[in-house]
Amino acid sequence: MPTAVPPVSPASAAAGPPDLSSLVIGVLGGTGDQGRGLARRLALAGQRVIIGSRDAGRAATAAATVGSASQVTGADNAGAAAAADVVIVAVPWEGHKELLASLASELAGKVVIDCVNPLGFDKRGAYPLPVPEGSAAQQAAAVLPDSIVVGAFHHVSAVLLLDPGVSRLDLDILVLGDDRAATDLVQGLAALLPGARGIYAGRLRNCGQIEALTANLVSVNRRYKAHAGIRITDV
Amino acid sequence: MPTAVPPVSPASAAAGPPDLSSLVIGVLGGTGDQGRGLARRLALAGQRVIIGSRDAGRAATAAATVGSASQVTGADNAGAAAAADVVIVAVPWEGHKELLASLASELAGKVVIDCVNPLGFDKRGAYPLPVPEGSAAQQAAAVLPDSIVVGAFHHVSAVLLLDPGVSRLDLDILVLGDDRAATDLVQGLAALLPGARGIYAGRLRNCGQIEALTANLVSVNRRYKAHAGIRITDV
Repeated sequence: MPTAVPPVSPASAAAGPPDLSSLVIGVLGGTGDQGRGLARRLALAGQRVIIGSRDAGRAATAAATVGSASQVTGADNAGAAAAADVVIVAVPWEGHKELLASLASELAGKVVIDCVNPLGFDKRGAYPLPVPEGSAAQQAAAVLPDSIVVGAFHHVSAVLLLDPGVSRLDLDILVLGDDRAATDLVQGLAALLPGARGIYAGRLRNCGQIEALTANLVSVNRRYKAHAGIRITDV
Repeated sequence: MPTAVPPVSPASAAAGPPDLSSLVIGVLGGTGDQGRGLARRLALAGQRVIIGSRDAGRAATAAATVGSASQVTGADNAGAAAAADVVIVAVPWEGHKELLASLASELAGKVVIDCVNPLGFDKRGAYPLPVPEGSAAQQAAAVLPDSIVVGAFHHVSAVLLLDPGVSRLDLDILVLGDDRAATDLVQGLAALLPGARGIYAGRLRNCGQIEALTANLVSVNRRYKAHAGIRITDV
């Protein structure tokens, strides 16, 4: 298995979470609301971010809306994947598999964070779509055999991420994966969102229901006129 | 569709949740930890409860451990289903379909609350089992065409329900169903558990991931040595 996580000295391992400050975060599909929102919050926390898109020009335009030019830049998806240390996948479900498969070499040896929710919508609301691999994250792992795939950031509201009036997010980010160093790293990134915690919530084989749970949050939002999130209690 | 919910006068409808005090709650599989725990907390809240089991003698023994004889009694599953106004299904997943199908006439016209989680366990932990109908609750609805099936109480820890030292449960009970009066009623029952809220979380077609989410909570409990629950934020 490739090792994508930056080396952690015994001292810093004992001291707590890995140092994330030098990591460059790529966001594939970063021109969508979810991708732009995550890019914005990570940049606000001090992280260098590269927004990726099919169109490098649109990526640059999106980058300019969420951070300073020294901190957030745009590139095509392949360029963002190649230049980043850790890559967030925030693309539409349609085309997810094909895009990732096309970037397998750029993403090799890296932690890839999948936050895609395979959902359908009809007049009764949202519902989970069947995924042959079990989940979007498992599909990513299947087409990226040389990357370390982690599932996270499924439930955070793009509206809240992008709202300059929201200084604190009231939710936990559930982090799923089979590699402890990688899930630790992503929990650290999740904790950069103000108010949020990164909570380990199981192996990748248990990611399907986390993605599907977004359909329930859509139902909650409709019923209660809310931007619902999830907190894990007793942790 | 049969109407199982007690009549609500216009005045009380306007005043808020339905009056639950006169409802007798049956708990099928009530000798298991989850069933006994729910019976105990509902009895503590003042509800009359009938614990059902394959063996009426074992049901009576279990009843005696969770409440006074005037408030909690035991019966065989068919007797509990017939005598109760609202029935909680807390049986093992194995045999779930067959048991409910055998009780279809006793359960006709009633609200049936399914809290069963179809999970498998191996050395890596818990994982969701495939369910042809989509979820245990949808399976219940398929074999109980004359009942109103609601999914709820999937995530509440039996340990906490049974612990006399725990006076308050820190979690929300997610309630799923297609009949508004029935989900309102179950939200009211959920709120009888001290500290808990009943939150509407979607239609029955979105119950599979709620059941499966229990596997994630098992992972959380292992990692953090917790009895994890879920809270919905911004509601």
